[in-house]
Amino acid sequence: MATAHPSAAPFSPKAQPSGLPPRRTGWTLPQPYFNDPAVYRLDVERVWKRGWLFAGHLCEIPRTGDYFLVELDTESLIVIRGEGDAVHALHNVCRHRGSVICTEPCGHVTRLVCPYHQWAYDLDGRLVAWRGMQSDLDKADFPLTRVAVREVAGLIFICLAPEPTPFEAAAACFGPLATPQGFRRAKVARAEDYLVKANWKVVWENNRECYHCNVNHPQYIQANFDHYNTDDTPPRVREVMAAAVSRSEARWAAEGLAATHADTGMTLFPDAARGIWFSANRTTLVDGWVSESMDGRQVAPLMGDYRDADVGTLRMRALPNFWNHSSCDHSVSTRLLPLGPQLTAIRVWWLVAEHAVEGRDYDLGRLMPFWQLTSEQDWIICERQQKGINSTAYQPGPYSTFKEYNVEGFVRWYLDTLGKSE
Amino acid sequence: MATAHPSAAPFSPKAQPSGLPPRRTGWTLPQPYFNDPAVYRLDVERVWKRGWLFAGHLCEIPRTGDYFLVELDTESLIVIRGEGDAVHALHNVCRHRGSVICTEPCGHVTRLVCPYHQWAYDLDGRLVAWRGMQSDLDKADFPLTRVAVREVAGLIFICLAPEPTPFEAAAACFGPLATPQGFRRAKVARAEDYLVKANWKVVWENNRECYHCNVNHPQYIQANFDHYNTDDTPPRVREVMAAAVSRSEARWAAEGLAATHADTGMTLFPDAARGIWFSANRTTLVDGWVSESMDGRQVAPLMGDYRDADVGTLRMRALPNFWNHSSCDHSVSTRLLPLGPQLTAIRVWWLVAEHAVEGRDYDLGRLMPFWQLTSEQDWIICERQQKGINSTAYQPGPYSTFKEYNVEGFVRWYLDTLGKSE
Amino acid sequence: MATAHPSAAPFSPKAQPSGLPPRRTGWTLPQPYFNDPAVYRLDVERVWKRGWLFAGHLCEIPRTGDYFLVELDTESLIVIRGEGDAVHALHNVCRHRGSVICTEPCGHVTRLVCPYHQWAYDLDGRLVAWRGMQSDLDKADFPLTRVAVREVAGLIFICLAPEPTPFEAAAACFGPLATPQGFRRAKVARAEDYLVKANWKVVWENNRECYHCNVNHPQYIQANFDHYNTDDTPPRVREVMAAAVSRSEARWAAEGLAATHADTGMTLFPDAARGIWFSANRTTLVDGWVSESMDGRQVAPLMGDYRDADVGTLRMRALPNFWNHSSCDHSVSTRLLPLGPQLTAIRVWWLVAEHAVEGRDYDLGRLMPFWQLTSEQDWIICERQQKGINSTAYQPGPYSTFKEYNVEGFVRWYLDTLGKSE
Repeated sequence: MATAHPSAAPFSPKAQPSGLPPRRTGWTLPQPYFNDPAVYRLDVERVWKRGWLFAGHLCEIPRTGDYFLVELDTESLIVIRGEGDAVHALHNVCRHRGSVICTEPCGHVTRLVCPYHQWAYDLDGRLVAWRGMQSDLDKADFPLTRVAVREVAGLIFICLAPEPTPFEAAAACFGPLATPQGFRRAKVARAEDYLVKANWKVVWENNRECYHCNVNHPQYIQANFDHYNTDDTPPRVREVMAAAVSRSEARWAAEGLAATHADTGMTLFPDAARGIWFSANRTTLVDGWVSESMDGRQVAPLMGDYRDADVGTLRMRALPNFWNHSSCDHSVSTRLLPLGPQLTAIRVWWLVAEHAVEGRDYDLGRLMPFWQLTSEQDWIICERQQKGINSTAYQPGPYSTFKEYNVEGFVRWYLDTLGKSE
Repeated sequence: MATAHPSAAPFSPKAQPSGLPPRRTGWTLPQPYFNDPAVYRLDVERVWKRGWLFAGHLCEIPRTGDYFLVELDTESLIVIRGEGDAVHALHNVCRHRGSVICTEPCGHVTRLVCPYHQWAYDLDGRLVAWRGMQSDLDKADFPLTRVAVREVAGLIFICLAPEPTPFEAAAACFGPLATPQGFRRAKVARAEDYLVKANWKVVWENNRECYHCNVNHPQYIQANFDHYNTDDTPPRVREVMAAAVSRSEARWAAEGLAATHADTGMTLFPDAARGIWFSANRTTLVDGWVSESMDGRQVAPLMGDYRDADVGTLRMRALPNFWNHSSCDHSVSTRLLPLGPQLTAIRVWWLVAEHAVEGRDYDLGRLMPFWQLTSEQDWIICERQQKGINSTAYQPGPYSTFKEYNVEGFVRWYLDTLGKSE
Repeated sequence: MATAHPSAAPFSPKAQPSGLPPRRTGWTLPQPYFNDPAVYRLDVERVWKRGWLFAGHLCEIPRTGDYFLVELDTESLIVIRGEGDAVHALHNVCRHRGSVICTEPCGHVTRLVCPYHQWAYDLDGRLVAWRGMQSDLDKADFPLTRVAVREVAGLIFICLAPEPTPFEAAAACFGPLATPQGFRRAKVARAEDYLVKANWKVVWENNRECYHCNVNHPQYIQANFDHYNTDDTPPRVREVMAAAVSRSEARWAAEGLAATHADTGMTLFPDAARGIWFSANRTTLVDGWVSESMDGRQVAPLMGDYRDADVGTLRMRALPNFWNHSSCDHSVSTRLLPLGPQLTAIRVWWLVAEHAVEGRDYDLGRLMPFWQLTSEQDWIICERQQKGINSTAYQPGPYSTFKEYNVEGFVRWYLDTLGKSE
């Protein structure tokens, strides 16, 4: 008989946040976690304002003064390129009367000037001019409110907490694996924005299992092995996968790459017991596929340090709001931002090599469909689940220990994060 | 002097639900009953989740596997035709992760398969397949949540309460009167859906009086006697009505039909004192009218058992959400479903004989206007009343004992239902 | 060194309403004042239902039976011309079942007849007919609910309080200054309605300073001196202004007009310490401008009693919802009405002389842009400020004592009004 996953092990009940309905280990969360405005407020305070949030890519703000906004719940943040490699993250709220300062989702400025009364701030948020203010006030007392920012291998993360949790381990994890992908030398070919009518946890739970892939993701399952698990991987698939892995190992060694997940099924993530909220791994694709494209063929020039198309896929994810799937030729980042108990803003980016030219080196019609279809299939699933959860007939159901071990892992991480912060 | 209706008799104050503002007998309800979210929750719990709700017509699901959805408040229900004559009503919520199972408002299935992970249920809700689940769980523990369902003469009612109130008396009332109309052998010619920005009680109060008909329903008053009451029925109208009734009695006896309401004014309904939440009666139409159509002429083939067009009108109603007006040739059902304190979903169906063919046997342009105009005139009235009630200047006003005795009856039934459930 | 404004003087802390977050004198209000539904309810009860509200212009209802509606929060009010000069203001709520009576924003009636059951009211709200009601009820007990109304020089104000605060001082202020403008003999050339996504106080604070004018109002600053203050009025501007004032004084004396505000910067308003919630003054325009039009030239025939285009501008304002800028040839009124914590309905009217004919005497394309642009520039600013205030990074900031003395004055008046009402 197939072996169930270790996540089926007992889960310490101390992780149950006080005052919220109890949750049975191995079963879905009770309804209020998905639609109660009070739980949403807790989520914002304890998860979203304390964790490291993926903001965007360094290549989106290549020049000093380039910025983009990140908007979640009622917050608006400016992520801006300062002098040299510096990246700053600042609350987009003037210290005078509170107007937002940047009104466009991205742009270029020499100073951050409030459009209301022209209070002017340097790129790092220091107030440098305020015509008409009385002399008994000191400009030094009115900087824009800064938030923590870290950049690793071209990926920008921010943290709204006054005392951020450590980022070092995440940087150590992402850096070596993400560097060859060349994010710092990438170009955004396209970004799509979605408003998904579902709680952000519904979106994550969907992301953490491939139990739904067979029927819902006809494109995705052609390229990957995730949807096979210990209970249903036939010997033929095991052989195919072993061959793919050994072939990869031989070729990749020369490139300094390595397959870090060589089984069917998804790699274990997250892992609350070990405090793991991030992970990355390189995985083989199905034989004959060199890119997560509709036909598995390369759809853009090689990115970063790659010399060969056969590099499998690089996958990264960080809670509470980031995942990325990268092929040899393009990279797809997904970012979640909560807007309400049942509303999540999701952006999906398609990145290619810096000098790739649309129409010459790649076509959006070939570059985008694999992940656009897969993403939009998931958003529909999430909205259906949210609608059903809202019914009074909803009651928690059991997770498959073979296929939903990572959903259980996500729920443990979530409850742990909520409980830890009390 | 005209005699006031018995509903003007004293009303027992014990029917006042505790904690809600007191209501003066014979006067309209205080504002919170119409717009307070807390009262709306009470209404959902004590009226809508305990009463028998009209769902739709058996002829809408003629084949095994045909289904339609019923959606109220946050609930979604599947009404589905099982084997033979069986009709099942099931919460549209998968027992695994809570996704809705049916995503279209109506359709045909062989099994109810959740689109998320393909848990599969039989037409009566039993779980029959769940790929990938561990063997220490038992499928028998995860049926779809069933709700009670009753079918009478082709009309389907459901009840969300675990222990439904008796339906027998309602079935005994509707059966004999509805059977000749032939609902089981009917066809839906058209259904219109409305979102009315008014509390559901505003819609019922409008339905329970014809005081507003003279000015607001120019079509309706040509065909009916409801808008005359004891205070204002002139001798000429009494004579006309008596002639219509005696002519009907002579003809209908041969058909086994009978006029069960032979006065001007509306029949008394509901009757809280006697626990009456349903009623049905056959009434004469104005001389020269054989159908509730714009000109009173027949607009479709005879329905059901009728052999003659002169059968008056059959009227049925059941609280909290159903009324029907049937002529010899077509039948119009109206169903209310609450979506919020000030939002009510209303569906109106036009039914004709099973084998009637559009364009040959009937035209929608002749079939629909009488009740489409009358219905839409009422929805506008209801939205105007809701808007005024929301003002702080609103204060309860007196009902006419001549014309609004049934509105008083409705309010008594409502308060009684709310109070009884405590 | 420039002198700060007297509003920088200490402000009595007793004006702090109990239970609300404390506010530091000279600094902006804390966040809840701008987005908390509970504060919004307080604002409606203590400011909007107690103060005198500008409703509209007498010239909009010239004939007996003409009416327009005023809608704020959940209230709907009928302002109607009675016999002769009488103006009545009535809650638009039938005393029978609560329906609104007038369903169009303006119109003409002979009686106010409820569209539901035709209860009929005289123009002053007395119930005069109710077909079908029982004889033991007395019509005299069911008038429409009246609210106080005052008309001064063609401007109509209403007060929803049962015991309105005195209006006499406001009438004495507006009457002499507004009469020459000829509002009673005016015509509405156009009205524009806006829904601004900002708290009503955000809109007022914007109105009470010209610190934002230099960059945001390129049209407005060409015509006016408001944007210069004690700290930044150069000698050249002082000379220009003094010349404009003395020239005006010489000419206006013959007309019986007078410049009542002859400094740069805005006149002091409001003044909580002296209970001043209204003010009016005549001000010179920049040399060469005779009208607040795009090029300063006259764009319509002279209004009212004016014999000469060189009359400067008449400005009036009344809290909580009115301001007006009038030139020799046209007058622009602005009215605010709150619809929610972050939603304000704003109407802007353009008035011209009664007999002016569009296309012959004036073109909307020349009449409207100056104030349409200036108004819409402000609404954008207000929505940006509201968005920033909603951030958790918002914290109160300091007002410029040179430029925002009237914003401080507005806040004092507001807190005083809120505190006084306890």
